[in-house]
Amino acid sequence: MKQVIEQTSTPEGAHIAVHTGGKPVPAALGVSLSLEETNTVQPQRQWGKVREYCREAFSEFFGTMILVLFGDGVIAQVVLSNGEKGSYVSIAWGWGLGVMLGVYVSGISGSHINPAVTLASCILRKFPWRKFPVYAVAQVLGAMCAAAIVYGNYRSAIDVYEGGSDIRTVPGHSSSATAGIFATYPAPFMTTTGQFFSEFIASSILMFMIFTLKDDGNLGAGPLTPLALFFVIFGIGSCFGWETGYAINLARDFGPRLVSYMIGYGPEVWTAGNHYFWVPIIAPFLGCTFGGWVYDMFLYTGKDSPVNTPYLGFRRLVPMRRTRQAPQTEV
Amino acid sequence: MKQVIEQTSTPEGAHIAVHTGGKPVPAALGVSLSLEETNTVQPQRQWGKVREYCREAFSEFFGTMILVLFGDGVIAQVVLSNGEKGSYVSIAWGWGLGVMLGVYVSGISGSHINPAVTLASCILRKFPWRKFPVYAVAQVLGAMCAAAIVYGNYRSAIDVYEGGSDIRTVPGHSSSATAGIFATYPAPFMTTTGQFFSEFIASSILMFMIFTLKDDGNLGAGPLTPLALFFVIFGIGSCFGWETGYAINLARDFGPRLVSYMIGYGPEVWTAGNHYFWVPIIAPFLGCTFGGWVYDMFLYTGKDSPVNTPYLGFRRLVPMRRTRQAPQTEV
Amino acid sequence: MKQVIEQTSTPEGAHIAVHTGGKPVPAALGVSLSLEETNTVQPQRQWGKVREYCREAFSEFFGTMILVLFGDGVIAQVVLSNGEKGSYVSIAWGWGLGVMLGVYVSGISGSHINPAVTLASCILRKFPWRKFPVYAVAQVLGAMCAAAIVYGNYRSAIDVYEGGSDIRTVPGHSSSATAGIFATYPAPFMTTTGQFFSEFIASSILMFMIFTLKDDGNLGAGPLTPLALFFVIFGIGSCFGWETGYAINLARDFGPRLVSYMIGYGPEVWTAGNHYFWVPIIAPFLGCTFGGWVYDMFLYTGKDSPVNTPYLGFRRLVPMRRTRQAPQTEV
Amino acid sequence: MKQVIEQTSTPEGAHIAVHTGGKPVPAALGVSLSLEETNTVQPQRQWGKVREYCREAFSEFFGTMILVLFGDGVIAQVVLSNGEKGSYVSIAWGWGLGVMLGVYVSGISGSHINPAVTLASCILRKFPWRKFPVYAVAQVLGAMCAAAIVYGNYRSAIDVYEGGSDIRTVPGHSSSATAGIFATYPAPFMTTTGQFFSEFIASSILMFMIFTLKDDGNLGAGPLTPLALFFVIFGIGSCFGWETGYAINLARDFGPRLVSYMIGYGPEVWTAGNHYFWVPIIAPFLGCTFGGWVYDMFLYTGKDSPVNTPYLGFRRLVPMRRTRQAPQTEV
Repeated sequence: MKQVIEQTSTPEGAHIAVHTGGKPVPAALGVSLSLEETNTVQPQRQWGKVREYCREAFSEFFGTMILVLFGDGVIAQVVLSNGEKGSYVSIAWGWGLGVMLGVYVSGISGSHINPAVTLASCILRKFPWRKFPVYAVAQVLGAMCAAAIVYGNYRSAIDVYEGGSDIRTVPGHSSSATAGIFATYPAPFMTTTGQFFSEFIASSILMFMIFTLKDDGNLGAGPLTPLALFFVIFGIGSCFGWETGYAINLARDFGPRLVSYMIGYGPEVWTAGNHYFWVPIIAPFLGCTFGGWVYDMFLYTGKDSPVNTPYLGFRRLVPMRRTRQAPQTEV
Repeated sequence: MKQVIEQTSTPEGAHIAVHTGGKPVPAALGVSLSLEETNTVQPQRQWGKVREYCREAFSEFFGTMILVLFGDGVIAQVVLSNGEKGSYVSIAWGWGLGVMLGVYVSGISGSHINPAVTLASCILRKFPWRKFPVYAVAQVLGAMCAAAIVYGNYRSAIDVYEGGSDIRTVPGHSSSATAGIFATYPAPFMTTTGQFFSEFIASSILMFMIFTLKDDGNLGAGPLTPLALFFVIFGIGSCFGWETGYAINLARDFGPRLVSYMIGYGPEVWTAGNHYFWVPIIAPFLGCTFGGWVYDMFLYTGKDSPVNTPYLGFRRLVPMRRTRQAPQTEV
Repeated sequence: MKQVIEQTSTPEGAHIAVHTGGKPVPAALGVSLSLEETNTVQPQRQWGKVREYCREAFSEFFGTMILVLFGDGVIAQVVLSNGEKGSYVSIAWGWGLGVMLGVYVSGISGSHINPAVTLASCILRKFPWRKFPVYAVAQVLGAMCAAAIVYGNYRSAIDVYEGGSDIRTVPGHSSSATAGIFATYPAPFMTTTGQFFSEFIASSILMFMIFTLKDDGNLGAGPLTPLALFFVIFGIGSCFGWETGYAINLARDFGPRLVSYMIGYGPEVWTAGNHYFWVPIIAPFLGCTFGGWVYDMFLYTGKDSPVNTPYLGFRRLVPMRRTRQAPQTEV
Repeated sequence: MKQVIEQTSTPEGAHIAVHTGGKPVPAALGVSLSLEETNTVQPQRQWGKVREYCREAFSEFFGTMILVLFGDGVIAQVVLSNGEKGSYVSIAWGWGLGVMLGVYVSGISGSHINPAVTLASCILRKFPWRKFPVYAVAQVLGAMCAAAIVYGNYRSAIDVYEGGSDIRTVPGHSSSATAGIFATYPAPFMTTTGQFFSEFIASSILMFMIFTLKDDGNLGAGPLTPLALFFVIFGIGSCFGWETGYAINLARDFGPRLVSYMIGYGPEVWTAGNHYFWVPIIAPFLGCTFGGWVYDMFLYTGKDSPVNTPYLGFRRLVPMRRTRQAPQTEV
């Protein structure tokens, strides 16, 4: 990001102008927000103040909502039209462009739209830990909201497909199951270890690629990052998406699964696939952190990663020792 | 848009140079036109003067024409070749790239190519109201023109498909209907409420995404905006396009529908789907305005939105009070 | 294209520096060549001199070769594998990306790779007429070369498909015809008028879009032009490609057709489709010129178009009057 | 690449700032590395030092790993799901985006991810010969690592597909062969000459296009290079991918083939297709060098190519004569 700072002293006083040549790329740090606040004037109103505090939460909420609107929407269209209005490839497209557009929507908050990405940013990019719960809640709520809208939109089509307005079934329990519209269910031949490994690998690749695309010390995708993320998600869906449905995101999977439970799909949404539901909750956190760590360990040189600080950053894990040090200046 | 203005005073006189670094992004305001007029010299001719007045109308006319040429063209090719030369996914591609290329064509006028986008721009982005009727008429005429060209191009193929040059049928009345090439017809199981909701949701997403992509306070798509709009339209077609055919545009649906009526498809073009024809006229206006309002309410900070003015802009709805105020300076 | 010219007078003498911020966009004029010659030093060698004179011809040769390599290659793969390794949509992709990559290859010469584009540039963008024959010959030779390579590559597969190494048949004369790999053949139900109209429309759209994408007074695609052209060609293939195979290019159609005749496909390559072969020779010239003229007439304001000169440029058609004028300065 | 260097002398001392406007494009030279080292401070640690020496090897390792993860992964998904979760077109997408994302990952080392590209860079772009073995080994190891991960991920699905956990078969020896997931096997009707020619052509096109996209004297793709390479690889897969599976890369083919041999696919991985395995080892080297040479010979003017030096660079092949000359300054 080219940024030119001009400081001119005139008789009327000093004047400082900041010209930002490019657009702020999706930053894992909160930098994009502060920059933007400087440039625009916040209206002095009640709602304006509320919004100022909640802005990042709104941003993650709507970003995840757009992601799931397109993602769940495309599965609904493909499944309910019996493949007439799309195919598995359409589903990979839908999730890919859902992420791309969700990233555009949530640029204000750093475009996480995934609690696992937020966690990896906290651990590896000095993203403030206090924001983690706010982000995670906003993401899950956004996904739930989107799942409800998709259900409202396709309700009559689901009735036709399931055979009645009071029938809602889960994959493995019926040949006309529609719960797969909302949450992921693994292929029948998968063991729990296999499920976990598949989600772990996909999440690792996701985070490794996110750090790659954002690293200006490497090639860096700059303003093409959202488009490149489309290819990442499309690729994960095409290459590692069959076995478990590539949730790779707690918000995307748990949120809509909860909505489907509330709608009336029954407790099978939790028990199906040998209680599969916890895998896309745990595996993405571990996978994303591992994938991001591999990138930092072998390729990243930025000083915001603990890997590039003394003792590989493990000193941070011992907070007592830190208090004895002089305060670190973190830019 | 980076814009550098240099003013130098030399003995020969003052010199002002305007360097526009980037390309004017599709602006909802008429700014792009005025900038461009400054840089190029208008030829002093009769036609030049006519064109100067009609330039924005021409721009919207041809933008919408390109949109519908590709959009109706791809449906014609897929339907008439019995799916041999394309599939439903091709149709989503066709409309997506139709919008993308139409946006490039109509950059001069702000790339609306949709009356609902023009309306939302009037309400939420200070686009001048007096331009609304001109834009809407130009858009509808462009779409009609394109539908006529598509009909001319595929006339003999339609004859073969329908079974004769005097047979033209509408979906629901014949298994070899071709009226769906020109206008949208809903899936048979849809209620009117469901039709309206589906169009409303799709239009909301459209406008929400347009405002997102153009917002430089957010990530902003800049010169990638037309490409990102391809993904938006492709996504709406893949995720919310089955039930009603995602018209989300009065000009795209009403114009070609009128042409199909004039060609001889009969009054069924108006009565089909329980008089569906009015839904894609009304729903996009409401949906686009709602979607744009949601973006402004929660994420937008620019002062050109009434949401960011005192009293959330409702003062504007009371014109009497405004006259008592000092005139506002609107940049 | 941002271009900053600095002129500084120092005691050592005047110094002029030209900084070209962006990449030269595919220019219809020869400007890109001259700029580039300034920046790089030509090696003083025999071959270097030959190449300096032939550089634009080489550029068009290889650009068209890449176009036809991908275009004819994808048809060969789809047809010969009986649709196992691709579909009609793949063919639209192949031609689209063939144009995109061909445009990158032939940037030195303005990326025409189509005689009709060269003609329209001569008429409407002051491209020098004397270059037209050189460009057209280079384009046809490049296409022929590519067709020969594709034939060499797929020879054994054609033998298997046709049923023998001495059998080569043309669409309409055999169910296992392979001549369609090289040149286009119209759908059986098309009249000659319909063929001509279809090619004319497709060519008009092509040129209208090329002028749109290159017009910096409009939105302009800038460095995204090759990618946008992918969408244009893919769109034409998906929307107007069924009836005649969207040759829209003399070089692409006539060159490989000649090669297929030389290979031994017999005189049917000329007689098939009611002597269709002349349509993709004539129609693209007329269509491209018409499409470009429409753009200039209604939307273009640049002074390099005759439409924006006095008398709409018809004065140019009367060369005698021009000699009496003072010589025009053409930048 | 625009680069502005500011040097200011203040009472506190001299200050030098380097502003790099653009991102370093994937350079065949090691330039990108050195630039990047200047801007970031290497941490003074053991691991930091190890990494500093191995950084380019790591970069190629992970770049090729990402390439093969997506590439082999998509074949696994398509084959093992019997085409339910993708088609041949998906495979072309997977390899295309694998290259695109691998190029982003390995920007530090110049984004070769293919020994043949490294070789052509050594011969035609002054890339240091001493780096060739390191690059080649890193690339092969990365591909092997990725193949092992793909095998681990799809192990149970392979068991189901092959019919047992101890059955692993090679195409041509079984109808449920899965060795094609890892390495390429030619179509049955291909002669060895045909195999070689097909790989040679595809490799030539690859290198010709890489040099095109990186040539700023031509149009140049700049930051769009990775995206354009997606189209190149997708195009090669769609147009020249049927007959031999377009390995065009020793690392991509030999590495995973070795892994499949180690896994237990038996010696048939070497003997299948008339000992085809050596073709994708030899042909890419020859093809890439030829394709790059054609580009340099006819279109390239940069002085880093031997073609543009006296005697077409053949003097370089006679090292004795060089020692008698004054040392050349190579920038």
